[in-house]
Amino acid sequence: MRISELSRRTGVPTATIKYYLREGLLPPGRPTAATQAQYDGTHVQRLRLIRALAEVGGLSLASIRRVLDAVDDKSLHVHQLLGTAHYALGPTVTAPTDDPEWTAVRDEVDAFIAELGWQVTPGAPARDLLTQALLALRRLGMPTPVDDLRPYADAARSLATRELARLPDDVGQRDAGRRDAVVAETVAVTTLYEPVLLALRRLAQEHESALRFREDLCTEEDRAQ
Amino acid sequence: MRISELSRRTGVPTATIKYYLREGLLPPGRPTAATQAQYDGTHVQRLRLIRALAEVGGLSLASIRRVLDAVDDKSLHVHQLLGTAHYALGPTVTAPTDDPEWTAVRDEVDAFIAELGWQVTPGAPARDLLTQALLALRRLGMPTPVDDLRPYADAARSLATRELARLPDDVGQRDAGRRDAVVAETVAVTTLYEPVLLALRRLAQEHESALRFREDLCTEEDRAQ
Repeated sequence: MRISELSRRTGVPTATIKYYLREGLLPPGRPTAATQAQYDGTHVQRLRLIRALAEVGGLSLASIRRVLDAVDDKSLHVHQLLGTAHYALGPTVTAPTDDPEWTAVRDEVDAFIAELGWQVTPGAPARDLLTQALLALRRLGMPTPVDDLRPYADAARSLATRELARLPDDVGQRDAGRRDAVVAETVAVTTLYEPVLLALRRLAQEHESALRFREDLCTEEDRAQ
Repeated sequence: MRISELSRRTGVPTATIKYYLREGLLPPGRPTAATQAQYDGTHVQRLRLIRALAEVGGLSLASIRRVLDAVDDKSLHVHQLLGTAHYALGPTVTAPTDDPEWTAVRDEVDAFIAELGWQVTPGAPARDLLTQALLALRRLGMPTPVDDLRPYADAARSLATRELARLPDDVGQRDAGRRDAVVAETVAVTTLYEPVLLALRRLAQEHESALRFREDLCTEEDRAQ
C-alpha cells in the first residue's frame, strides 16, 4: 500500500509517518519510485504499536525507541523484553543520594519484596517508584506501614500470574512470526493494562464513594432546599 | 518559622516556595516585617501535599491548583473532592468525535460498568481512559473481550472498598481540623496509591516472568558457554 493508505488505515497523519520513518522508528517501505514506497501489514502493526505506546502508555519517543529496539533485537528473551518495557514506562524516579529517610524507606521496600518471596532485580525501577510513594504518604502524616501494601501486592500478584500465563509457552528465537506475536502481547500487557487498572480503580472508587456518601449528600441538598 | 526553615523542613528550595506563594498555591505567611513572614505547620503540610501531587502523582501545576481549590472549598463534600482529584489526575483522553470504532468500544465500556452495578457519572474521565486502552489493545490484534477486564475490575473494587472504608465516618463541614485530615487522606489515597499499585504490578510481573522464563534463560546461557 502507499503511504496515504497506511495513513488512512492507522489514523496516523502522513507527516507523522514520515517523521517516524526519518527517525527510524518505522522501517522503510519497499521503494517503487524515486519518491514512492510500498508498505505492508507489518508497517500497519508497527504504527499501531507506536501510537499505543505514545497515547495509551504515555511513553516519550525516546522511550518508544528503546522498546522498539528491544522488540527488534531477536537475541533478547521475552523476560528481558519485559524488563526493557518496565524501564521505558516511567515515571523515572531519581533516588536522592543523601536522604536518610529515603534510604530507610527503600530498605523497608526491599525487605517487603524479599518477604513476599518475589525474584526481582535489585535495580528494578519500580522499587524506587514504590519508595517514593510510600515516603510521600508518610511525610503527609499517614503512617502507612509497609504491611498496608499487602492487599495491593496480592492483587498485583494475582493479575500478573494471569497475564504471564497468557503468553504462549514456546517463546524463543526459533519461530520469527510467533516471536513477533508474543513480543507484541508482552509489550501490550505490560503497558496497556496499566491504564485499564488505573481507570477501573478510579471508577470503583467513585462507586464506593457514592455508596458511602450519597446519603450524606442528599440529606445536605434536601436541607438546603 | 522563617521561609528558610520551611525550606529545610520540606526539602523544597526557597525559590520554589516563593513561586508557589506568588502563584497562590501556598497561602501567605503572617507578615513580621516588610520582607519577612512567619510560616507554620499548615504551610509545611500544604507544601508536602503540593510536592506529593507533583512528584508522585505527576500532576501539572494547573491540575494541582484545581485540587487545592477543591481542598480549600469547605462547601465541597468528600465525594465531590474525590471527583475533582480524579479529573485532575489525567492522563486526559480526548474522545474523537467521529470514530465509529471508538463509539462502539465506549458503548461496551458503559455496558460493562452498568453490568458491574457501579454508580459512576456518565462523564467520568476514567470511562474514556478505559475505552482508549481497550481500543488500542484490539487494534494491535488482541481480541480483549470486555469480560477479560473482570479480574481487573474485581481487584479494583476490592481495593477501593478498603480505601473508602479507611475514611472516617463523620466527614463534613462541621469540624474544620477533622475535615482537613479527611481531605488530605482522600487526595493521598486517590493519587498516591496509584503508583503503589503500578509499581507492585510491575514487580509482580517481573517475578512471574522470572518463574516462567528463568529456566529457558539459564539453558540458553549454558548452551552459549
